[in-house]
Formats: sequence, structure tokens, C-alpha cells
Amino acid sequence: MRGAEILARATWSALAEPGDAVAGALVMLVGAHESLVWVRQAVRDGPDFSRLEARHGPLVDADRARLGRALARWAVRLPDCDPLRDLERLDRIGGTLLTPGDPRWPTALDDLGAEAPFCLWVRGSADLGRSLERSAAIVGSRAATSYGERVAFDLADGLAGAGVCVVSGGAYGIDAAAHRGAVARDGRTLVLLAGGVDRAYPAGNARLLEAVVGAGGALAAEVPPASLPTKSRFLQRNRLIAAAGRATVVVEAAWRSGAMSTAHHAARLLRPVGAVPGPVTSVASAGCHRLLRDGVAVCVTDAAEVRELAGLIGADLAADPEAAADARVARPHDGLDPVSRRVLDALTRRVPAPLDRVASVAGVSVAEARGAVGLLELEGWAARRGDGWVLVARSTS
Amino acid sequence: MRGAEILARATWSALAEPGDAVAGALVMLVGAHESLVWVRQAVRDGPDFSRLEARHGPLVDADRARLGRALARWAVRLPDCDPLRDLERLDRIGGTLLTPGDPRWPTALDDLGAEAPFCLWVRGSADLGRSLERSAAIVGSRAATSYGERVAFDLADGLAGAGVCVVSGGAYGIDAAAHRGAVARDGRTLVLLAGGVDRAYPAGNARLLEAVVGAGGALAAEVPPASLPTKSRFLQRNRLIAAAGRATVVVEAAWRSGAMSTAHHAARLLRPVGAVPGPVTSVASAGCHRLLRDGVAVCVTDAAEVRELAGLIGADLAADPEAAADARVARPHDGLDPVSRRVLDALTRRVPAPLDRVASVAGVSVAEARGAVGLLELEGWAARRGDGWVLVARSTS
Repeated sequence: MRGAEILARATWSALAEPGDAVAGALVMLVGAHESLVWVRQAVRDGPDFSRLEARHGPLVDADRARLGRALARWAVRLPDCDPLRDLERLDRIGGTLLTPGDPRWPTALDDLGAEAPFCLWVRGSADLGRSLERSAAIVGSRAATSYGERVAFDLADGLAGAGVCVVSGGAYGIDAAAHRGAVARDGRTLVLLAGGVDRAYPAGNARLLEAVVGAGGALAAEVPPASLPTKSRFLQRNRLIAAAGRATVVVEAAWRSGAMSTAHHAARLLRPVGAVPGPVTSVASAGCHRLLRDGVAVCVTDAAEVRELAGLIGADLAADPEAAADARVARPHDGLDPVSRRVLDALTRRVPAPLDRVASVAGVSVAEARGAVGLLELEGWAARRGDGWVLVARSTS
Repeated sequence: MRGAEILARATWSALAEPGDAVAGALVMLVGAHESLVWVRQAVRDGPDFSRLEARHGPLVDADRARLGRALARWAVRLPDCDPLRDLERLDRIGGTLLTPGDPRWPTALDDLGAEAPFCLWVRGSADLGRSLERSAAIVGSRAATSYGERVAFDLADGLAGAGVCVVSGGAYGIDAAAHRGAVARDGRTLVLLAGGVDRAYPAGNARLLEAVVGAGGALAAEVPPASLPTKSRFLQRNRLIAAAGRATVVVEAAWRSGAMSTAHHAARLLRPVGAVPGPVTSVASAGCHRLLRDGVAVCVTDAAEVRELAGLIGADLAADPEAAADARVARPHDGLDPVSRRVLDALTRRVPAPLDRVASVAGVSVAEARGAVGLLELEGWAARRGDGWVLVARSTS
């Protein structure tokens, strides 16, 4: 990408609010630099739609009206836009400006179409393209319970241990626990901030954000350094988290919350969505259960299931916990055929039972009972005593 | 149903183990009485297949072999079968024998086909057909947690309050908590036992079983009074629970457990299955989460959702908890349009901001900002101060 184009994208990231689809469409149509030249001229002399129509074909009235309204809002900010000042601020914290076309650009964000960010202002490891190849977003409430924070930490710990980059928003509660879990494993984690990357927000997580960078992770924002994290930017930031993760997992969320909006963004982008269940008595899990009930999310309970959800298959295919569980609770007579099992259940330790009695209790024929007690005797389960049969205590080694 | 047929069904319930599909098919083919006559003659003189073939058409070798093996096991029990003795035992506890065709027979059990019970030995309110019209099965681990028992109790309490009969197996843990929840509401609950209805099993639940009968509920079994609750009967009993409930809900279950088998029985019968989520850190909820992950069960969190699952719709359609939740967390500025909201977010309480500054921070045009502050002023959100605008503390009545 030419330098002018990169600078124009940096400018656009200050000029348009995150998620401004009119700006995004204009940049897609004629490029960042040319669209900016057009905007400057339009603000000065009034819009010359013919230049756009030469590229796009005739504009309908609604498009002209949308562009007119957008120009009015861009005009307000245009005088304050100073990409060189913003880039200096980025330099001062050793940051990197990433734009599409850069080999380190996370192409997953292009799925946002006209709402894709113009650029990313990054602090820390700048190769986001590579980091996000194996990634999962973990999101949830700021008002998390200790259960939720523990699960978020454990999931992130497990994902980081498998080389998966944990994406979240750096907020208190679930977000922070997820970043912490990744950092504890010295794993990469990406914090997508609603404000500038030079602002530690929230302030209470400042040390955590430093630790993220120290562990090889990154902080990134689509707005320039020094930008304020406004409410609408928090909401728009959620679409970035949803697009950045190969899957999005909600750990705890109330009915209405940013995490729910992130989950729905992910679903709209056809990214898999997971929800961690919790006690039905906990309002902090109500959003997760709603996502499960509505079929928006799949139930996930550990890091392996998140990896499976994220399509990090092959070596990442979740080991069937049934096998492990079966091994754990395997019953020693699991290998027996159904008739032998019923005959085994019909025997008692103390009172020897004749064969016809055994058959009657078990509900099998005498011939079947005879075959079964023979087998059970060989296996050390049953013993003849007098005319009857008893159950034998067998060591379950 | 003729008296001979009823007596023959009572006999079959002692002769064949629960779920004996060969016996069931034979009874469906020629009737309970005639099949019993045929069995007695076959045991005495060897099987005369021509009599069956007159009704069924030619029997293939595999059918003859299956019948031959079945005859061998029925022959063992035939001498002990004494339906009059069993009916006397039932009379002694004031019980009722229900057979298909009785207006009180729960026709839902007919969905089990050849594995349907021949009859039900009932203690308590015998109109099971009516009780099960509005019903839901609640099942789960004996090794339940206090969380699981509380949820089972609350679900049953809520269902009973809505006139829904709670079906379960009378075991310790979840089953007992569910029956208790229904009894606490003086609601009908059905205990499907693996052994005879004159045996309180497990003994520790004897008082609970009495209370079930006292509250207008019932105990029922497909085996005659005095029958032992064997392991295979517990497993077969689960198919009755699944068939009796219009939906089956698993509250807590380990990976391998009777409750999981009940859930799969219900799924096979195309009955809706629900699972109550719990902490992922609790092994007692692992089976529920597996049912959710496998798509066997729907996530349910309260009695209204169970009623919805059971298709007890209309007045029973679960009230959308979102409406309630929204009312709970409604934000006072929810009614504002997006531009006004962004302008509201751009205002501060202390420092008056001129209109172009407000527009720039909000990312809207000056005209939009002017319109928005006007609206916000009218609504009591904003106030002019000098050349600028400030946010006003508004009582959120």
C-alpha cells in the first residue's frame, strides 16, 4: 500500500466513527486517499458526485442523501484530523500502524465489509495476522462472579497452552480473567480497546495491559492514540472482537450486555459462538443460557471444546471426554454379555441359589443360566456352593 | 377388556421381564390370554407354530428361534406365576391394576410398542391417563449436589403449581427432590418404581412415597407386588419414565447414569428432552452439558421453560424472560434515537462544550448535534450554559 494511502487510512480512522459504513463504502469504492481528497473538496466546494459516479455508476437519490449527511458529520472533524500527530503519538509508545495489504494485517477483519476498520493502531507484537490464525475470543460481564472468572482464566490458560491467541476487550471481570489466564501461560493475547492504545482503560487494568504486551501479546484499536473510549465505541469495538476470533465464547453475561452483542456480531459473521453454562440460579449466566436456548451458541465447558468450536481441528479435535469418563467410572462387569449380567445380578453373596431359581430371578432360561454361571465362575464372579450358586467378592484390579 | 384378558396381562407382567419384546409382540399378535394359553401348551407339548401362523402368516426361522429361546425363559417362571396372589397383595394395599383399554390407562405408554408394559400395578390416584395429559419427567443423579436438588425441587414446585404432574423414579437425590417439590405444592406426582408398589424402595424414601400418595399422586410399577427391583428393572423402568412424561428434563447427571439413559429413551420416543445447565466445574452436571452439546437436549432453566418444552402451550407458553429482564435493566435513555444518544454521551456535567465540539466528539454533523441538544434539553437531559452545553442529572423516575 502506498504511503499516501496508509496516511489516508490513518486520517479516516480519526474522521469517521468506528463502524461508519458510508465512509467504509466510499473508501472501498475509490480508495482512502482519493476519497479523502474528494471529501476535502466536497466540504470546501460542495459535493461533486460525478467523480464518484465515474467509478460507481449513477448514484440514486438515497445514496446522495446518505453521502450528504455523512459529509456534514465528517466536516465537523476534518479540521482536527492530524494523522502525523497521531503517528507521532504512536511512535512515542513504540506502536505500529497496520493497514490492509500489510502482511501482518488480520484479514479476518475484512469480513466486516464496509464496516471493517480502516487501520489498526497497535502496541506490542504487531503480526496480528499470524496471531489470529489460531484464535478464540473470550468475552463476558464486567460484573462477573468468581465462578465466571475462574472458568475464563482456565479456558484462556488452556487455549494459550495450545498456542491459541485469546482475544478480548480488556475490561474488568471476564475479559481481564481471560487475558490473565493467557498471560499466566506466557501466551499471546490480543486486547481490542475502544479508545486509543496509549490510554490504559480501565485504569485498574493498566498493569495487566502491560503484562499482555510483555508476554508477546498486543493492544489494538481502530481509533488513533488519545481517542476517548465512548459508549458507541465500546459497542463498535465488540464487532472487532467477534471478527478477530475464529470463534467467540461467552463465559458469563446478563440478559443485556456487551458480551451478548459480541455473540450476535459473531453469529452474523457466521463465526461459531460458544456459551459456558453456569448455575441457573445465577443471573450472571442468564445470557449464556439464553444463547444456548436460542440456538445461537453451542455449549462449551473446557478449552478443548473451544478449540473444536473454533475449527482448530486435526490435532485440535477435542478428545472425547466420554472415553476418559468411561475409564473413570468403568464397571468391572462391563465386558459381560446381557444374559450373564442379569444372572450376575440375580446371585447373592450368602444364600446359594439353585440354577432354576437363578434363571427365574434373572428372567432367563435354565440353559442360559447354566452357561452364564459357568462363564461367571471362570471369570471369578460366581462360585458353586452345595447345589447352588453364590456371588464372589472379586478384587477389581 | 375381558376379565380373562386382564388376568392374563397380570400374569404376563410376572412371566416376562420388563421390556421383553418377544412377549410384547406375541401379546400384540394374539392377545394376552390366547398367547398365555399357547405358551402353557408349548411348554407342555412343544411349540405349535401353526396356530400363530394362522394369525401372523408364515414365521421365518429367526422368529421361531427367538420364540423358542423366549419359551425356555418363560418356562422357568411359569410355575411361580400366580396372578390371584399378586392381585390379593395389591388389594391389601388398596391398589389398582390398570390395563390398556381402561379409561384411566396412560396411552402415552403405548408409544413403547412391543416393549410397552402389559399392565400397571398402581397405588394411589389411579387415573394416570388424566394425570399424564399434563406431565413432565424430572430425572437425575442419586449423587446430586445441593444445587441440583434445589433446582429439581423448584422446577417440580413450579410445574405442580401449574397443574403439571411430575414423573420420576423415587430414587435418592434429584428424583426425591422433584417428588418433594410437587408434594410441597400439594401437586400430583407419579413415582415409577422398578420393583413392586408394596415395597418402599429405597427404604429411606418410604415417608416421601407415602406423602406422594397422600398428596393425590401415585406409585406405579409394571411388575407385580413383592417383585424385587433388580438392576435390569431399573434400566427398563427408565423407558417408562421417558414414555410417561410429555418431556423429560435431566437436572444433574454424570456421564454415565440412569438419567442419561432416560434422556436417550425419551429422544428415541421423539419426546422433547431438556437439560438443566450447571457449573462446568461440577461433574454432577457433566451429563447435562453433554446432552446440550450433542443436541439431544434443549437448555431449560425454569418451570415455564419446561412447560414450553413439554408442548403445554397456549396459556403455558413460557413468558419471554427478556421482557422482564429488559424492564429490570431498562436504561432511561433507551427511548432516544442513535444520534441523540451519541450526543448525550458526548456531553459532560462540568465543562460546557460548544456545539461544534459536541458534534466532533459524537461524530455527527453540527446540524444533527443542534437538533439533538434541543431534544435533550426538552427531555431534561441537557442544558445550555454560556455558549456551550452540559449534561444534566435527571431523576430516573
